[in-house]
Amino acid sequence: MNTQTNFDMVLFGATGDLAMRKLLPCLYQAHVAGLLHPEGRILGVSRSELDGAGFLAKVESNAKIHIKQNFSDSQWASFIKRIDYLTVDVTRAEHFEALGEKVKARRQTENVVVYLSTAPKFFAQACENLAKVGLNADNVRVVLEKPLGTDLQSSQQINTDVAKYFKEEQIYRIDHYLGKESLQNLLALRFANIMFEPLWNNKYIASVQLTIAEQLGVEERGEFYDITGALRDMVQNHLMQMLCMTAMERPASLDADAVRDEKVKVIKSLKPLTVESVNENVIRGQYTAAEGMNGYLQETDVPAGSFTETYVAIKAEIENERWAGVPFYLRTGKRMAGKVAEIVLNFRDLDSHIFDGSQTAPNRLVIELQPSESVRLYTQVKTPGAGNNVEPTALSVDMGKEIPGRRQEAYERLLLDVINGKLALFNRRDELEAAWEYVMPILENWAENTQAPHGYPAHSWGPEAARELLARDGNRWHEEQ
Amino acid sequence: MNTQTNFDMVLFGATGDLAMRKLLPCLYQAHVAGLLHPEGRILGVSRSELDGAGFLAKVESNAKIHIKQNFSDSQWASFIKRIDYLTVDVTRAEHFEALGEKVKARRQTENVVVYLSTAPKFFAQACENLAKVGLNADNVRVVLEKPLGTDLQSSQQINTDVAKYFKEEQIYRIDHYLGKESLQNLLALRFANIMFEPLWNNKYIASVQLTIAEQLGVEERGEFYDITGALRDMVQNHLMQMLCMTAMERPASLDADAVRDEKVKVIKSLKPLTVESVNENVIRGQYTAAEGMNGYLQETDVPAGSFTETYVAIKAEIENERWAGVPFYLRTGKRMAGKVAEIVLNFRDLDSHIFDGSQTAPNRLVIELQPSESVRLYTQVKTPGAGNNVEPTALSVDMGKEIPGRRQEAYERLLLDVINGKLALFNRRDELEAAWEYVMPILENWAENTQAPHGYPAHSWGPEAARELLARDGNRWHEEQ
Repeated sequence: MNTQTNFDMVLFGATGDLAMRKLLPCLYQAHVAGLLHPEGRILGVSRSELDGAGFLAKVESNAKIHIKQNFSDSQWASFIKRIDYLTVDVTRAEHFEALGEKVKARRQTENVVVYLSTAPKFFAQACENLAKVGLNADNVRVVLEKPLGTDLQSSQQINTDVAKYFKEEQIYRIDHYLGKESLQNLLALRFANIMFEPLWNNKYIASVQLTIAEQLGVEERGEFYDITGALRDMVQNHLMQMLCMTAMERPASLDADAVRDEKVKVIKSLKPLTVESVNENVIRGQYTAAEGMNGYLQETDVPAGSFTETYVAIKAEIENERWAGVPFYLRTGKRMAGKVAEIVLNFRDLDSHIFDGSQTAPNRLVIELQPSESVRLYTQVKTPGAGNNVEPTALSVDMGKEIPGRRQEAYERLLLDVINGKLALFNRRDELEAAWEYVMPILENWAENTQAPHGYPAHSWGPEAARELLARDGNRWHEEQ
Repeated sequence: MNTQTNFDMVLFGATGDLAMRKLLPCLYQAHVAGLLHPEGRILGVSRSELDGAGFLAKVESNAKIHIKQNFSDSQWASFIKRIDYLTVDVTRAEHFEALGEKVKARRQTENVVVYLSTAPKFFAQACENLAKVGLNADNVRVVLEKPLGTDLQSSQQINTDVAKYFKEEQIYRIDHYLGKESLQNLLALRFANIMFEPLWNNKYIASVQLTIAEQLGVEERGEFYDITGALRDMVQNHLMQMLCMTAMERPASLDADAVRDEKVKVIKSLKPLTVESVNENVIRGQYTAAEGMNGYLQETDVPAGSFTETYVAIKAEIENERWAGVPFYLRTGKRMAGKVAEIVLNFRDLDSHIFDGSQTAPNRLVIELQPSESVRLYTQVKTPGAGNNVEPTALSVDMGKEIPGRRQEAYERLLLDVINGKLALFNRRDELEAAWEYVMPILENWAENTQAPHGYPAHSWGPEAARELLARDGNRWHEEQ
């Protein structure tokens, strides 16, 4: 089988953390799995004054340690033959001459991937300089690593800058959540099965919860984190994508634009927040010291009195026929009680009960993205014995157990999709900007708001205020159901 | 907790096979579980000239060996204190005098259960003689063990005879399938959950299969079996009940008549068979020798050239709004490839597919009554890796594992329901007669039909003709799906 697409990948930021921790290890896994064209090559570039050997030494001592499985010396030896290095300072046009030469020197340059794993402030200049040497031609794809801006305006600026040199269909904006099998499986559940879609609406669903909870704190990244916060780090991108895939209409096909059209429609159907309504519908939280762990304000490099949120909960509403009246509760946080990403659909209660046990919970569909990749449909069954009592149990499947086979990490899948020119799992400009538009009133409110974030003890499920956000509607977060 | 109802049970046929194999062992289990009132007593009666000690000796050597669990000497000793014996020849009125005296001799006779575990030909006389000594008063319930007739006319006769002495609400007609937890759980699945009912109709369900397959042959019961056959033994009663509980509308409550009203509606909505349409819609099968096993015609006491069916498959149709156009395939057989009782709902295919893998099967809900008590919802999930392939897996629950606790045998549950005056799990007259009415054209066709039953090898899934019955509609039996 030789159906792989040949490629030249130019990896900006090649000595950086993401390249070492994710990109190169994922490329290695694709190599081992036979998913890379034998002649595909990877050209690392960065400002560092290294030669090929020097870069490989760095890869050897950094990237290699992140390869947790499938490592073999012979595979590694054949993998690194793909790798070369060139010093390129993004700000120096003359460096791009050499880059252009190097890429063109290959016989086959029909499929060039330029991965900009750099700070976004360099995107504009990098694109301009790439264009100068023709590395923006139709055969070139550019991958933009997040964060793509810090607000609507800066995001628009980046998109406008890049759009000067690249057409939208050449631009691959990364949201690695879209590379997760379990999130793609959500679409399969919804659209490859006849039985879920009839229930997937406000007639049967009472509320939806989308959670990305981390157990880790900000660790050593206090300085970065404090200027970012959970809203930018997780909500505007990952949680918004989970929302889109949960709520979207059936696309006409799985083609990139068919899917992205539907996702944009969801974001644009969100009931807009206002600076005022944020007070009612959004909870800003910050973890406090507990169980021997630091609070956020005690973490290294976090400025005294910072209001940066390590937790966000949002009550969102989608104003369309399918979802009107169904609250979508989004939340994410660091230092929470568990590490979990999940989608919970709470069904409405029956209008009347002929079985006993009406205190038991209504049906609930839980799609767990991590730690396990599983689906659980909570169902009432008869309690054995006399009487007509029912009790909940779950129809469930653990995909990791039932569907054997290697799982690609999100970045591996996405890198291969770029190489193969598949845009479906990347953000389109309008989608990204619509998401920014939605969260802007939150940023604006918080910029003015003098009320400190709601504290929550490290390794808890978040602030009391987030509990109240749901209690107001008669609802509870999943861990309390 | 002393919520048990006191009772006097008079057990006709007390020395018979059913009493020894099921009724007494099940009463013992109820005793051990503390579900029998401490003063409740069991009076065995039969023609055998025994005294109490003689009967107990028989119980000791016969019933006791059928107690597979929870046996303890002390429990057994306390259980048999409930048991007494009286010789009663059903045909001799004077024997009932003594019976009447014996029952009345107890201080409390407010709750009398008369269990007629005898051949139905004795029912009329037994009831008449019971009435003569007042044992048909409102405080008496009578349990009728199957077979309740061999056709519509004989069934009506039995019911008419019994009705001379007992009101309908005093009459408990046994179909032990109704005592099965897993069949009751079907109603819980349907009516205690919001998510199944919207799918439970001809818009989403393409076909339904109801199977009761046995691996055993007729064993030593060839003589009995040959005059009975699978249609009377399994279809008219058990399979018809499974059909009713699968297809019925939601009852207003779980009260006996509310449920039975809905079941009767299903049977009466069945598209009537005619003697002619039986040729098209009903398969009569008979097992043939294979794998070292006898064919039916080689079994002990089976008459040469018998046409008695050991297998039946029926394509039934329900002519109502919910089910019009959905074939219900019923089948039962002896010497089949597996021992299984199950309900399979095959969902319609999607009208269009956006995922690949359209060769894979549409959704399917399998409710297994035995050997395991489980529910499996076959679902398409995404095949890991690039591409948009899906493959089937199952959301499943094994109730035996997930809902711990002792399961009552069907007869235990039913005996307790009689004691407690709960009619819901017993057949009402109209229900039973409607079922006979449905199968009569089959009996009539077969009585005339000179075509021998379709052979099927022992331990196979039935005759080729049954496969063709489904293939005609583009369908396949579950084991071939």
